[in-house]
Amino acid sequence: MPSRYRSFRCSVPWLILLLQALLLLRSFLGFPGVSDTYSPSNSYPEFQDVNHMVIFGFGFFLMVLRRYGFSSTGFNFLLVVLGVQCSMLAEDLLVFLRGEQNEVGLESLARAFVSVTAVVISTGAVLGRANPVQLIVMTLVELTFFYVSRYINERFLEVPAPLTGMHVYLFGAYFGLALASRFPEAPPGLDKSRSTPKSELFSVLGTVFVWVFWPSFNSILPFLKMQAVINTYLALAVSAVAAFMLSALTSKDGKFRMAQIRSAVLAGGVTISYTAERIHHPWIAMILGLLGSVITILGSHCVQRCFNPALKLQDTSGVHFTFGLPAVLGAVATVVLIVVEDGIDTRWNELSRLGYDAFVYIGAFCQTISTALITGLITGLILNIKLLKAVHVSKYFDDQFYWEFPHLSVGF
Amino acid sequence: MPSRYRSFRCSVPWLILLLQALLLLRSFLGFPGVSDTYSPSNSYPEFQDVNHMVIFGFGFFLMVLRRYGFSSTGFNFLLVVLGVQCSMLAEDLLVFLRGEQNEVGLESLARAFVSVTAVVISTGAVLGRANPVQLIVMTLVELTFFYVSRYINERFLEVPAPLTGMHVYLFGAYFGLALASRFPEAPPGLDKSRSTPKSELFSVLGTVFVWVFWPSFNSILPFLKMQAVINTYLALAVSAVAAFMLSALTSKDGKFRMAQIRSAVLAGGVTISYTAERIHHPWIAMILGLLGSVITILGSHCVQRCFNPALKLQDTSGVHFTFGLPAVLGAVATVVLIVVEDGIDTRWNELSRLGYDAFVYIGAFCQTISTALITGLITGLILNIKLLKAVHVSKYFDDQFYWEFPHLSVGF
Amino acid sequence: MPSRYRSFRCSVPWLILLLQALLLLRSFLGFPGVSDTYSPSNSYPEFQDVNHMVIFGFGFFLMVLRRYGFSSTGFNFLLVVLGVQCSMLAEDLLVFLRGEQNEVGLESLARAFVSVTAVVISTGAVLGRANPVQLIVMTLVELTFFYVSRYINERFLEVPAPLTGMHVYLFGAYFGLALASRFPEAPPGLDKSRSTPKSELFSVLGTVFVWVFWPSFNSILPFLKMQAVINTYLALAVSAVAAFMLSALTSKDGKFRMAQIRSAVLAGGVTISYTAERIHHPWIAMILGLLGSVITILGSHCVQRCFNPALKLQDTSGVHFTFGLPAVLGAVATVVLIVVEDGIDTRWNELSRLGYDAFVYIGAFCQTISTALITGLITGLILNIKLLKAVHVSKYFDDQFYWEFPHLSVGF
Repeated sequence: MPSRYRSFRCSVPWLILLLQALLLLRSFLGFPGVSDTYSPSNSYPEFQDVNHMVIFGFGFFLMVLRRYGFSSTGFNFLLVVLGVQCSMLAEDLLVFLRGEQNEVGLESLARAFVSVTAVVISTGAVLGRANPVQLIVMTLVELTFFYVSRYINERFLEVPAPLTGMHVYLFGAYFGLALASRFPEAPPGLDKSRSTPKSELFSVLGTVFVWVFWPSFNSILPFLKMQAVINTYLALAVSAVAAFMLSALTSKDGKFRMAQIRSAVLAGGVTISYTAERIHHPWIAMILGLLGSVITILGSHCVQRCFNPALKLQDTSGVHFTFGLPAVLGAVATVVLIVVEDGIDTRWNELSRLGYDAFVYIGAFCQTISTALITGLITGLILNIKLLKAVHVSKYFDDQFYWEFPHLSVGF
Repeated sequence: MPSRYRSFRCSVPWLILLLQALLLLRSFLGFPGVSDTYSPSNSYPEFQDVNHMVIFGFGFFLMVLRRYGFSSTGFNFLLVVLGVQCSMLAEDLLVFLRGEQNEVGLESLARAFVSVTAVVISTGAVLGRANPVQLIVMTLVELTFFYVSRYINERFLEVPAPLTGMHVYLFGAYFGLALASRFPEAPPGLDKSRSTPKSELFSVLGTVFVWVFWPSFNSILPFLKMQAVINTYLALAVSAVAAFMLSALTSKDGKFRMAQIRSAVLAGGVTISYTAERIHHPWIAMILGLLGSVITILGSHCVQRCFNPALKLQDTSGVHFTFGLPAVLGAVATVVLIVVEDGIDTRWNELSRLGYDAFVYIGAFCQTISTALITGLITGLILNIKLLKAVHVSKYFDDQFYWEFPHLSVGF
Repeated sequence: MPSRYRSFRCSVPWLILLLQALLLLRSFLGFPGVSDTYSPSNSYPEFQDVNHMVIFGFGFFLMVLRRYGFSSTGFNFLLVVLGVQCSMLAEDLLVFLRGEQNEVGLESLARAFVSVTAVVISTGAVLGRANPVQLIVMTLVELTFFYVSRYINERFLEVPAPLTGMHVYLFGAYFGLALASRFPEAPPGLDKSRSTPKSELFSVLGTVFVWVFWPSFNSILPFLKMQAVINTYLALAVSAVAAFMLSALTSKDGKFRMAQIRSAVLAGGVTISYTAERIHHPWIAMILGLLGSVITILGSHCVQRCFNPALKLQDTSGVHFTFGLPAVLGAVATVVLIVVEDGIDTRWNELSRLGYDAFVYIGAFCQTISTALITGLITGLILNIKLLKAVHVSKYFDDQFYWEFPHLSVGF
C-alpha cells in the first residue's frame, strides 16, 4: 500500500518539524529572563534515574507485542523527547502565571519528565493501534489539558504543587482509556497482538527498571525526599510480594502469570505516589502497597472480563488496572490520611475544616478524572478523522508498517 | 500433572501471605521507637546502585538456562523483596541487641540488601532444581542463620560490623553448595540444562550490570567509601583482563569461553570485598583482582572435573568458583594484610597481639564457613521432605512448570 | 582451521599478560608520591554513569551484526578495562609533566574513561574484521598517539585541558576510518554482516543507555557541570526529534530506519561536547543538536553512497557519520562561538586577539584530525603484517571464530 506510506512521509516529518521550530522559536524569544539562566541543582542522580525510567524503563515495559518491538521503544522515545520540550514550555508558562522568576534547570526538566509520563501511560492504551501522526497530536493535546487541569487544581482548589503533579497516573490512564474507546477494535484472533517469551523477557527488563527507579520518580517533586524514597520502596516491595502471591492464587492451576505480575509489582508505586512524603509510619506504606497489588490483580480480572467487553474497549497493555485503579486507590487513601492526620492533630475539634480539606482533595480528584475522560473522548474523536489516516485494523500491531526492514528475509 | 500444580496453589501463596502478614504486624507493633523514625541519608545514589545490582544484575546474571528465563529473574525478584523485609527485621533486632537507637532509613535498607545477596548466591547453586516453596523456606532459614553467624562474629570475636557483612559471599556460596548436595542430581544429558547464545547474551547483560555496580556494593558498608570504590574498581579491572587471558589459555583451541569469563570478571569484586577500604596501595588491589581471577578459572576446572563428581554435587551456575573460592582467598588476604599492616605499625614488637588478631579473623572465617556448611546441609535435608513437594528430576530447569504460557503455540 | 586457533592461544593471552604485568609493575613502583594517595571526590554518581555508558552502552550499541554479539560486547569490555589502565598511566604521566601532585582518584579514573572512548569508537569502524590481537595492539597505539596529540594541544596551543579531552570523538572516528581503509573489504553479499531485528533491539538498548548517560559524559571534565548537563540534554532531545523527522523524510516510503535513528539520536551529544559548558542560551544548544542530526543523516547518505565506495572503505558501524561528522561540526561551532562571544565582550575592538584565538582552536582541530588520520593509516599498515594473523575475509563477522559454542547444536 505505497500510497498510504507516502502520505506518512508528507505528514509525520513536517508535523515534527513545525513543532520543533516552534519550540526553538520560543526558546529563542524566551519569556522575560528565561533563557539566560541556569539554576544549580543537587538532585542530578535522581534526575538521571527519572530520565532513565521514563525513556528506557517504559520504552521496554511496553515491548510486549511480538511484532511491535521497534515501535514500542522508538515511538515512546520520540514522544518523550517531544513531550519534554512541550512540557518545559508549559512549566515556564505556569511559573510565569504564578509571577515567579523563571529558570532553565534540572528542576524544570525533572518536572517536565513527570508530566510526560501521562503521555507514556496513555500510549500504552492505544499501543499498536495509533499511528505516529495520531500519537504526536495526542501528545500535544494531552499535555495541554493536563497542564490546564493542574492549573485548576493549583489555583482554584489550592492543592500543593507536588501533589498536582502526581495526578499524572490518573490523568494518563483515564485519558488513554477514553481515547482507546474511540479506536476501532482489533479482530479478536489476531496473532500479532500476542506476546512471545522473548518479548516478555524484554518487557520484564523494562519493568525491573521502572520498579528500581520508582522511588526516585516519587521523590523528585516532594520536599521530604528521603521519606518519600523509603515509603515508596516499602510499598513497592510489599506490592511485589503480593503480586506473586495473588497471581498464583488466581490462576487456574497455581502457576504464575508474567503479564499480571508485571502490572502488579508496579501498583505499589502508583498507590503511594500521592502520599509518599506524608506517611510517618512504615506500616501504612506497606498496607497501601498491598492494597495496590490486590486492586490491580482483581481489577485485571474484572476489567478484562466484564468492563472492557461491555464498553467494547480495548486496552492493549492494561493501563486501566496497572495505573488507573491504583491511582484511584491512592487518591482515596490521600483523603483518608489527610483527614485522619488533621483530625488527630486538632483532636477532632475542627470538623468543618476537616470537611473542607476532604472536599478540596476529592474535588481535585474528580476534576482530574473527569477532565481526563472528557478530553480523552474528544481527542479520540479528533484522532480518527480522515486527515490523520488512522491505521487499518489489519495493519495493527505491526512494525513493518512503520519501519524499514532490510533484514526481512532473515525472518523475525 | 494438575494435582501437583494445585498443591503449589495451596502452598506458595499462603506461605507468602503468612510471611507478609507477620512482617506487617512487626512493622505495626514496632520495637520501641522504631517505626516512627526516618533517618536522613546522603548515600542515595549508592543505595540505588546496590538495589539495581541485586534485583536486576543478579536476576539476569542467573538467566543462563535456555528454558528458565522467567523463573531466574522472577524468583530472584520475589526472594529479594521478601528477603529484604526479613533482613530489615533482623537488622532491627541486631541494633536492639546492641542497645542503640533504631531507625528505618536508607542505611538499614542498604544493609538489608547486602545480607540478601547471600540468598541470591545460594539460589544460583540450586537454580532450576528447587521449587518456589523450597526457595522461600530457604530464604528464611538462610537469613536467620546468616544473622546468627554475624552476631557471633560481631559479639564474641569482636570483628567490625562492616566486615561481618562482607562474609555474605562466603556464607551464601557454601550454604548453597551444602544445600545443593542434598538435591537429586539432574540426568547428565538433559537438554534443558544447557544455554543458548540468546540466553547467554541476557546473562552477559546482567553480568555487566553486576560488574559496573560492584564498587557501590563494596563501599556501601565501610566508612572510607572512596577508597573502597577505587580499590574495588582496580581489582575488577584487573580481574576482567585476567579473565580473558586465562580463558584463552585454558580452552582447547585458544578460544574464549563466555561462561568462564562471566564468572571470572566478577572474581575481583569478591576477593577485594573484605579489604577494599583497608588497602592503601593500588597495586595490592590489582594483585588481589588477578589472584581472584586465577583462582576462579583454575577452580572452575578442578571443581567441575574432580570435586563435584566425587561428591555427586551439582552446582547449576557455578557459585563455588564464582563466589566461594574468591571469598576464601579474600578472607585469607584479609588476615595477611591485617597482620602485615599491624606488624609494620608496631615494628613487629607485639607479636602476641598480632597472633591474637590473626586468630580472631581466622576464627570468624572458620565459624562462618562451618556454620554455612552445617546449616546448609540441614536445610537441604529439611527442604527435601515430602511436605515441600520437591520437583521431579524430569521437570528440572523448566519455566512451564511454574509459569503460564498463553503464547505456547508460538514456540520458544 | 585448528592451526590458526592455536596461534591465537599463543598470542592473545601472552600479550595481555605482558601488558598487565607492566601495568602492575608501574603501579608498584609508582611515580614519586603516586601510589599512596587517594583523593576524595563528590562526583561518584557521574563517574558511575560514564563507566556504565562506556562499558555497557557502547558494548551493546555495537551489537548490530547478527552473529557477532559475544565479540561486540566481550571485546569492547576487554579493550575498555585494558585501555583504562593504560590511560591512567598516561594521565599520570601528563600530570607528572605538568609538575603537579599526582593522585589516584575518581577524577583520574573518569578522565581515563573519557580517553578510552576513542578506542571504543575506532573499534566500531573495524568491527568484525579485526581479531583480538589487532584490537589490543590498536588500543595501545591509539591511546599513545591520542595522549601525544592532547599534550601538543595543551602544551603548545594552550587549549584548556577539558577541551582537549573532548577531541576524543574526532580522534577516535578518524583514526578508526584510516585504520579501516587498510583492512581488506568484506565481500558485499555477506549474509553475516547484516543485522536481525533481535540484534537491532539489543543495539537499541545500548543506544538508549548511551543517550541517557551522555549528559554525564559531557559534564565529567568541565567545571560548570550543571550547565554542561542541561545543554547536552537539550541538544540530545532536539537531535532525537530531528532524527525521526529526517529518517522519515529521506527513506523511500516515509518509513523510519532504525539504523539511521540510532546514529542520529546520538549526534547532538557529540556536536555539543566541546561547547556544553560554554553556551549560555538554551536555543544555541538546541540548534547545535538539530544541525548534528542533520549532518549525520545527510552524511550517512553521502558517505555510504559516494565517499566509502570511492575510497574502498568499509566502516562497519558507521562511525564516520555517527561520531566523525558531528565532531567536525562541533569543532567548527566552538570556533564560531568563542570568536562571537569574545567579540561581543570586547565590542569587536581586539580583532587581532580574536584572530589568534580562532587560529589556536582551528590549529588544535587540524592537528588532532591529521594526527588521527596519519597514525591511523600507519597503525592499519602495521596491524595487517603477517605476525598479527589478520582474519581471512570469509571468517569476518563471526563469533564462532573467537568463542567456544558448546550450545552450537541448539542453533543460533
